[in-house]
Amino acid sequence: MPSGPLMIIGGAEDKLRQRAILTEFVGAAGGEEARIAVIATASSLGPEVVEVYDALFRRLGAADVISVRPESREQAHDLELVAELGNVTGVFMTGGNQMKLSAVICGTPFGDALIDAHQRGVVIAGTSAGASIQSSHMVAFGGPGSTPKQRMTQVAAGLGLLESCVIDQHFEQRNRYGRLLMIVSESPSLLGVGVDEDTAAVVEEVEDHEILRVVGKGAVTIFDPARIVTNAYEAKRASPLLSSGVVLHVLPHGSRFDLTTRTLVPPPRFADPAEAAEMAEAGKDLRQLARDIAADDVSPSALRRRRARTRRKTQPAHHDPTHQDPTHQDGASS
Amino acid sequence: MPSGPLMIIGGAEDKLRQRAILTEFVGAAGGEEARIAVIATASSLGPEVVEVYDALFRRLGAADVISVRPESREQAHDLELVAELGNVTGVFMTGGNQMKLSAVICGTPFGDALIDAHQRGVVIAGTSAGASIQSSHMVAFGGPGSTPKQRMTQVAAGLGLLESCVIDQHFEQRNRYGRLLMIVSESPSLLGVGVDEDTAAVVEEVEDHEILRVVGKGAVTIFDPARIVTNAYEAKRASPLLSSGVVLHVLPHGSRFDLTTRTLVPPPRFADPAEAAEMAEAGKDLRQLARDIAADDVSPSALRRRRARTRRKTQPAHHDPTHQDPTHQDGASS
Repeated sequence: MPSGPLMIIGGAEDKLRQRAILTEFVGAAGGEEARIAVIATASSLGPEVVEVYDALFRRLGAADVISVRPESREQAHDLELVAELGNVTGVFMTGGNQMKLSAVICGTPFGDALIDAHQRGVVIAGTSAGASIQSSHMVAFGGPGSTPKQRMTQVAAGLGLLESCVIDQHFEQRNRYGRLLMIVSESPSLLGVGVDEDTAAVVEEVEDHEILRVVGKGAVTIFDPARIVTNAYEAKRASPLLSSGVVLHVLPHGSRFDLTTRTLVPPPRFADPAEAAEMAEAGKDLRQLARDIAADDVSPSALRRRRARTRRKTQPAHHDPTHQDPTHQDGASS
Repeated sequence: MPSGPLMIIGGAEDKLRQRAILTEFVGAAGGEEARIAVIATASSLGPEVVEVYDALFRRLGAADVISVRPESREQAHDLELVAELGNVTGVFMTGGNQMKLSAVICGTPFGDALIDAHQRGVVIAGTSAGASIQSSHMVAFGGPGSTPKQRMTQVAAGLGLLESCVIDQHFEQRNRYGRLLMIVSESPSLLGVGVDEDTAAVVEEVEDHEILRVVGKGAVTIFDPARIVTNAYEAKRASPLLSSGVVLHVLPHGSRFDLTTRTLVPPPRFADPAEAAEMAEAGKDLRQLARDIAADDVSPSALRRRRARTRRKTQPAHHDPTHQDPTHQDGASS
């Protein structure tokens, strides 16, 4: 049985409008059959934070939502609490302080139960701190800035649901390029994964490959330091680091990236069926035009008439009519 | 005769303390023989901005400093003004608005005279707007943020002293990763060059290669999009762009990068002669130790005595004595 999906959310996920990420989470947890555990250990807020997610997940159709919130390592060893994770179909870890979360749960029966749940196919989602903790190597804390500088950040051990990676969150909004680059410069076996706010990196096992898919408004940024040249082993404190040859991938909504081969998965040419149908129609039209030209049987007025016919046949009323002209593909520059 | 050096300064260069960048500029302009033209066209400030650089360059030893400041294209066609550039040995363009600078001088006799000066070996320096204008393709304006988004910035034509590049400045301080990534995603023939504040990219012709050397406190960041996969031609306005496979180089002070081959120039192993001498001594010590071990003639006490001798012989008083032990190289982790 493959492991469950991981949903690594960069913080500030949309809770009021389209809720694309949270809707996908509830669906992955089983929709109307979902029984979801909310873990708010990282948060310094009271029960309110759990109440928000409880209301959200029920609103999105989940059958049951429970709060499981160890506040100390002692509680994380409490087998009654741990047993609560035994029959959930989804886990959601809130934001807050990832060092508190890792300090309480990593290396305890509670932490092990999360790993077990992942391995038996349960979806594990986390936002902000709850995202950071999922990788084997976790950004503990550290300042902003786009240039990597010696000792600007610290690494601690995460839960290790995602191996050989280091995750950072609020990536664009808090300008964390530099600290993630520092970490991969010092640990070039790791892939750096930076997730913007209201954006999720969804990691799924597909035919023995780990495939990362992007959902949401921002981007997921990946640093692959496999061929890096760096002076990280000798640079002085606070100096900018030499980090030469890092391969960078900025991945917006819908992109897929193979974490196993560290390559982009080529996008399907037309993701939208309506667009695919329209293009097929336009292709037919072009083939007819080619035949007419070959037969020397084309005039501007004949062309206009044929276009008008095609438009009536295939064009929904709200569509931009320029779309229909196969010689004028719509795009950024139009 | 090779072209003169370009000094591309990311803004806010140190004017009060070590003045590393401005000192290098005056040196490149001929030191005590230097006759420097300050061009403040980009600035909205009055003569004060010229007075500051006038005082600075004279304080750093320049023989003469003149202000040459066309404020309109008409003035940039004034051949008397243009003639002022005929016998300068260095040019310094101030910060301000690079669109004003390009609007006034690009494609005028004044702009051509700057290109001529560069080609006859004169050093051309510019800070902020005066940096941007040097590349063939210039960032016109645009917002901050580390994730590249469609249409977040605009490109205009620069002076073209540096071909096939687009320069951005205040790079870390104003968080301009995203806009430079957007530009190279849309123009993958260009190399993106982002320069931090108080940092200069010095470009010199060395054996038909253009070599970029970094001077100053921050870093120069290079995006090489030669192998990019992008959706820039079809992404919608304000959407994050797919920019996969960009090779990233973060280059601190002292780094050298070959713009012609787009590769890092390997650093010399020991840039500091004192360090090189110390390492040579430590190497001798290690060779002696290897001989002693081979001759089975070594004891811990003999080793301690020999180390003490070596230390007296080579160690300056203020040095960290752990430096002397060849088995304990000093570094970031110590």
